[in-house]
Amino acid sequence: MQHNLNINYKDVFNEIVEEKKTVGYYELPLQDTSRIKLFARSVNKNNIVVIGIGGSTLGTYAIYKFLKRSHDLNKKLFFLETTDPVDIEEKLENIELQDTLFIVISKSGTTIETITLFKYINSLLPCNSSNTVIVSESDSKLTIYGKSNNMQCFEIPKNIGGRFSVFSVVGLLPLAIVGIDIDLLLKGARQIYDDFFEIKNSKIREKLLRKAKFFVNYKETHNINVIFSYSSQLDGFNKWYVQLWGESLGKIDDKSLKQGLTPIAITGPIDQHSFLQLIMEGKRDKTVTFIKINSFKNKLKIPNIKLKGLEEFDGLYDITFSDLINKQADATIESVNNTNDIPYDVIIIDSMSESAIAALMYEYELLTSIAGRLLNINTYNQPGVEMGKCILKSKLKKGFNI
Amino acid sequence: MQHNLNINYKDVFNEIVEEKKTVGYYELPLQDTSRIKLFARSVNKNNIVVIGIGGSTLGTYAIYKFLKRSHDLNKKLFFLETTDPVDIEEKLENIELQDTLFIVISKSGTTIETITLFKYINSLLPCNSSNTVIVSESDSKLTIYGKSNNMQCFEIPKNIGGRFSVFSVVGLLPLAIVGIDIDLLLKGARQIYDDFFEIKNSKIREKLLRKAKFFVNYKETHNINVIFSYSSQLDGFNKWYVQLWGESLGKIDDKSLKQGLTPIAITGPIDQHSFLQLIMEGKRDKTVTFIKINSFKNKLKIPNIKLKGLEEFDGLYDITFSDLINKQADATIESVNNTNDIPYDVIIIDSMSESAIAALMYEYELLTSIAGRLLNINTYNQPGVEMGKCILKSKLKKGFNI
Repeated sequence: MQHNLNINYKDVFNEIVEEKKTVGYYELPLQDTSRIKLFARSVNKNNIVVIGIGGSTLGTYAIYKFLKRSHDLNKKLFFLETTDPVDIEEKLENIELQDTLFIVISKSGTTIETITLFKYINSLLPCNSSNTVIVSESDSKLTIYGKSNNMQCFEIPKNIGGRFSVFSVVGLLPLAIVGIDIDLLLKGARQIYDDFFEIKNSKIREKLLRKAKFFVNYKETHNINVIFSYSSQLDGFNKWYVQLWGESLGKIDDKSLKQGLTPIAITGPIDQHSFLQLIMEGKRDKTVTFIKINSFKNKLKIPNIKLKGLEEFDGLYDITFSDLINKQADATIESVNNTNDIPYDVIIIDSMSESAIAALMYEYELLTSIAGRLLNINTYNQPGVEMGKCILKSKLKKGFNI
Repeated sequence: MQHNLNINYKDVFNEIVEEKKTVGYYELPLQDTSRIKLFARSVNKNNIVVIGIGGSTLGTYAIYKFLKRSHDLNKKLFFLETTDPVDIEEKLENIELQDTLFIVISKSGTTIETITLFKYINSLLPCNSSNTVIVSESDSKLTIYGKSNNMQCFEIPKNIGGRFSVFSVVGLLPLAIVGIDIDLLLKGARQIYDDFFEIKNSKIREKLLRKAKFFVNYKETHNINVIFSYSSQLDGFNKWYVQLWGESLGKIDDKSLKQGLTPIAITGPIDQHSFLQLIMEGKRDKTVTFIKINSFKNKLKIPNIKLKGLEEFDGLYDITFSDLINKQADATIESVNNTNDIPYDVIIIDSMSESAIAALMYEYELLTSIAGRLLNINTYNQPGVEMGKCILKSKLKKGFNI
């Protein structure tokens, strides 16, 4: 028996409309992108390296990974985001630094990974206004550094949190530079925005409210929300979702209770051979959201080749791999459906387009905000990570001038 | 209040010793590797492509990823494992196929992803005894195919499941070919084997029994087991753990109850900026195992560079990034410890050596087996994925000669 939330849809929607007056991400689909596009056109370096971590990179990577193979991009995008020295060395080996624009992104301006990595890059070549751009809050120490070195500085508004910043300059600047049409991205998000906020009997609003309510209603028994994406091109989206859902909803609520819905994101068909068994026969503590791509725009086919001994597969040809992966998705969905006791839904993305990935991500941001309202938490802060930062500073204190 | 398991350590250990008579993976550290090494020395191709999925690739990738940067390997290893056509095309673009040895790995010999990918490769170049090796059960259709084409065929014993096969030919063959010392790997696993099975007051036995018992004791409240690895070189291990734990323990038990401990694996410091908030302030439904690497054998340092505006960081130099990442780990561990209500443990790996990663993986296999015994399930099968396979075959039935 579940605790049934005593909130009707209209109340929650009105709370979101109220929230929209102060929380900045909602209005991002409506922004003017001309300064970003102007700067993007001026970049003549062939490699773009984002130095940042968490909300400064995950959304950008999600869109880049989703679009890069189907779009004719003219520059390469890399992310320097961890302090693992082996990883740093490996990444830098593959980038010609003289032909690189560095985009240093930190909302606070004092993210330790970002600043130490930027210092390290400074030891390899001079960073100046010709090869470095700053993205940070307008009055952060990083912005002060950038301005005093005549670097282009782009502002992250204070009321837009890192994990909700993909449609701000954080995501749009690097994506525009590598050649992605950011207006099409915003158009995709705008369609969801208009529908959710403006249409009278909006199906999207109804769907998102119902879905968030379901997750919150079943939070005690079904504390795990699995996204099962049927394309490796959604690997970046998967990681972004984990941050968005986990960091937004893992909070102490207004009654001092610890809340939290745990996100897991897996990829088909690879994780059919890993995680599916646990979904099918394990404890019923999970909801599952399948994501399928309707059209891969890809003609790769299983060839008509017969293998002696493997005659079983002789007739399996002239089907595209896109068809095969979608049939694998359908078969998994059908077997989950057949259990009759695993709550699931299916999202179908039309194609590998800017508007499709942006609409999906903006929908997930709205879903997260609604779930946060229903849980009576602050969706937009992350106080739980501050203690670790303080302990780290004290461990490094000889190095910190504080 | 937790249900306290009424099983003492000795009983469980005796059950494992009994299980060892029929379950094949336990004895793998004792095997003779001469045929594998002999064949590995004969390979003159520079690219090694494993065609396989799930248990046929995850363990191999875990070890390869962990060792490749610190070891001077003379060949490159790739994995073709998904039916996502975009992924297939992208991977193949970067491999010179004429200079490639293909290792086709499927225990059953009829894994649909593996066979269709192999057919596709056959359409790009002829696969024959000079460039293709088969790894499968001795009487599988894939082995029949291989033998009838005079290909080298290596046998996966029937009593070794895919996710427990990393120390069989499945993992050892590709790893030996690229230049990893597989005897050192087995030596690392062997040390755990000897200690666990042979030593009178074995600390490892005691630790693993206690740990598995803890997980099972707290399975109702703490249904999620998080591994938090502080090195990107453990990304492959993380994925392998998710399969091992999830697919082994997500089962219907002897009383027809659905069991399952849910594995999550994250990477520090990246996921400090994503998942840590949920651990710290979210619902107390998680245990956490931190994994740290004591010595990265890497001298990359934060340079002594001052940035105007960022004087706060001026003193932070002459510390290696390895030190920094380990201090980040320590700070996170301390903040988790300070909550006083998150169960956690810490595993410290000495260095990036063959024996260290093998010991870690063999310990996790033992831990999984013990947890499976305590849950009264069959740890080694995966009946929950069969339904999906049958539905897929019926969806493709025009193509299947069945």
